[in-house]
Amino acid sequence: MSQANIIGVGMTRFGKYPESHLADIAWPAVKSALADAGIEPGAIQAAYCGSALGGMMVGQSILARIGMTGIPITNVENACSSSSTALQQAVMAVRAGKYDTVLVIGAEKLTALGGGTLPLNEDDWEASQGMVMPALYAMRAMRYMHDYGLTREQLALVSVKNRANGAKNPDAQMQKPVTVEEVLASRPVADPFTLLQCCPTGDGAAAIIVASDKAAKKYAGKHPIRVLASDLTSGRFTPGFRDMTSPEITVRGSAEAYEEAGVGPQDINLAEVHDAFSIAELIYYEAFGFCARGEAGAFLESGASAINGKVAVNPSGGLLAKGHPVGATGAAQVVEVVRQLRGECGARQVPDAKVGLTHATGGGLAGFDHGACSIHILAR
Amino acid sequence: MSQANIIGVGMTRFGKYPESHLADIAWPAVKSALADAGIEPGAIQAAYCGSALGGMMVGQSILARIGMTGIPITNVENACSSSSTALQQAVMAVRAGKYDTVLVIGAEKLTALGGGTLPLNEDDWEASQGMVMPALYAMRAMRYMHDYGLTREQLALVSVKNRANGAKNPDAQMQKPVTVEEVLASRPVADPFTLLQCCPTGDGAAAIIVASDKAAKKYAGKHPIRVLASDLTSGRFTPGFRDMTSPEITVRGSAEAYEEAGVGPQDINLAEVHDAFSIAELIYYEAFGFCARGEAGAFLESGASAINGKVAVNPSGGLLAKGHPVGATGAAQVVEVVRQLRGECGARQVPDAKVGLTHATGGGLAGFDHGACSIHILAR
Repeated sequence: MSQANIIGVGMTRFGKYPESHLADIAWPAVKSALADAGIEPGAIQAAYCGSALGGMMVGQSILARIGMTGIPITNVENACSSSSTALQQAVMAVRAGKYDTVLVIGAEKLTALGGGTLPLNEDDWEASQGMVMPALYAMRAMRYMHDYGLTREQLALVSVKNRANGAKNPDAQMQKPVTVEEVLASRPVADPFTLLQCCPTGDGAAAIIVASDKAAKKYAGKHPIRVLASDLTSGRFTPGFRDMTSPEITVRGSAEAYEEAGVGPQDINLAEVHDAFSIAELIYYEAFGFCARGEAGAFLESGASAINGKVAVNPSGGLLAKGHPVGATGAAQVVEVVRQLRGECGARQVPDAKVGLTHATGGGLAGFDHGACSIHILAR
Repeated sequence: MSQANIIGVGMTRFGKYPESHLADIAWPAVKSALADAGIEPGAIQAAYCGSALGGMMVGQSILARIGMTGIPITNVENACSSSSTALQQAVMAVRAGKYDTVLVIGAEKLTALGGGTLPLNEDDWEASQGMVMPALYAMRAMRYMHDYGLTREQLALVSVKNRANGAKNPDAQMQKPVTVEEVLASRPVADPFTLLQCCPTGDGAAAIIVASDKAAKKYAGKHPIRVLASDLTSGRFTPGFRDMTSPEITVRGSAEAYEEAGVGPQDINLAEVHDAFSIAELIYYEAFGFCARGEAGAFLESGASAINGKVAVNPSGGLLAKGHPVGATGAAQVVEVVRQLRGECGARQVPDAKVGLTHATGGGLAGFDHGACSIHILAR
């Protein structure tokens, strides 16, 4: 059994590309990842493509553009975890010895859908009752404020930190820093959230080359990044009491991932977590054990989650600033962590980054209880 | 490394269920497969769900209905090969030792889309020019008739055979046998096809339990069926000359699958192949090596592909009679082959069936050149 290594990454800057085909948004990310790894397209043995809303045969249409055909191509859909689930399949295949070189793609074009919140499955009873994502996360936020005394200013500070990080990331959709005052003065969406506390919609793509030890030795021009853990889980059905301020799926997934990696929260230098709304990042500090329950607001205010802090959270800008083209997000998180672990991030570089974590979750009940959650732990 | 075994199968009869949620069409198939294997839901370690057009989080919504939550659930989309690609992932995971018990689901509700031909990706230039599936297959048929002298009566005979088989299959959508005269007199769709030479649209689901040797020993009340080969490939981009009467993707995939299984065409007792239109089945006889190029019409007329023939092709009724709810088709083919290999098929039982093959292909250019093709070879 080989380890799985990441030997190349690339992405298309998140933004709005309403005039482009999804395949044309995505193929440059693939070319960029191939070039980054120093591997020729013909040496890739299989591909997994994650997209939540891209329609039929997304991976095949992307790869046909650049002549990468004749290999096994599998499209994976797991809502916000689509491309991190695709990565999980690739990691499994490489570890199993099935393939030595696997391409992972995340691609999404939300501008194809027009505006508004995402269409959900006809079976999503809660969404059909008005419990769309902003409303669901807002309820979590209200409860957290009630239980732990979190202030609106602390909540806004998540956006301030992540927009500041995004301003240093050329691949981020939002490039302008904002102040607490600007965040709180932006238009209301679902109390306590204002617009700047909600991730933007957009388009984008990211690509990753996963390789066995043998292939990593052959191709990796740059230092290969080891995959220490690759975890996927789904929520548990919990009728009756739900702990609204603790995401059961992520708490369980993080325990599984730490165990697989043989590391703990104290070992994590940076984390790209699923900050679809401001409250989410705070709740994930606690779910991953970066701080104790109820202390996330103070942890953030202390600078512990800043780029130079104890654990840099969302140095890329996160979903709030880098953007959130749903199926592309998980792969883009991995792109950022790989670049950080290689020390390539310039003004937003996390000092001496050795171990990083990615976390993409979603699909139902605001990514808390139902849905899918995928966590990866990577090390240089 | 363990072998992968199929220890349980179940399906929801293909048909039209416009009033039902997709999840409610699918969960009975899952319960049926679990009962067939004699395994409790809590013993399933992971699930893969194939659906081409089911939307976001299909697998999670199906399994939430029956309390199967908290496990890794991955949704897979590969057009007509969606659920056979899901099976391929499950087989890989079991062979790798990642899981001992994996559930595979195929589910589709085409009545949710209204009528007509399937919506294709915005990138499908050929479909946007009018080259929808019936037209593409019709061109193949015309060319085959020109090159090899296939008659309209021979072409119609595919439907006659498969409708006769379907009439003996309680899970088939079309239960009425038809004559050559009725086939030829049905309304024209795309010359040379009449309506009865085109698979119907419909809804349905199928489920499969894949197990390691260890788990198969523990659970399989009935004889476990071994997976000898599990192949997935994509088409090669072929500008310029295309051999219209030979499906490159299936020719290549069948060679890969035979090699993996260590068997050849002469060893196959039954095959469920992708007869979306009458011509397709004939072309696949040749692609799988059941007969030589140009001889498919005579092969069919001789009875060689009948239930009591040399190799029983589509004893379930195939797509033409059992139906073709796109993402469910691959898994349903496996359900049929497993039941045949166990000797459970009553009036349509293939005598002394030892080795069977399934073949689901599609997604572009009528499943010939582009798209995805998934082939499984199973043995008792």
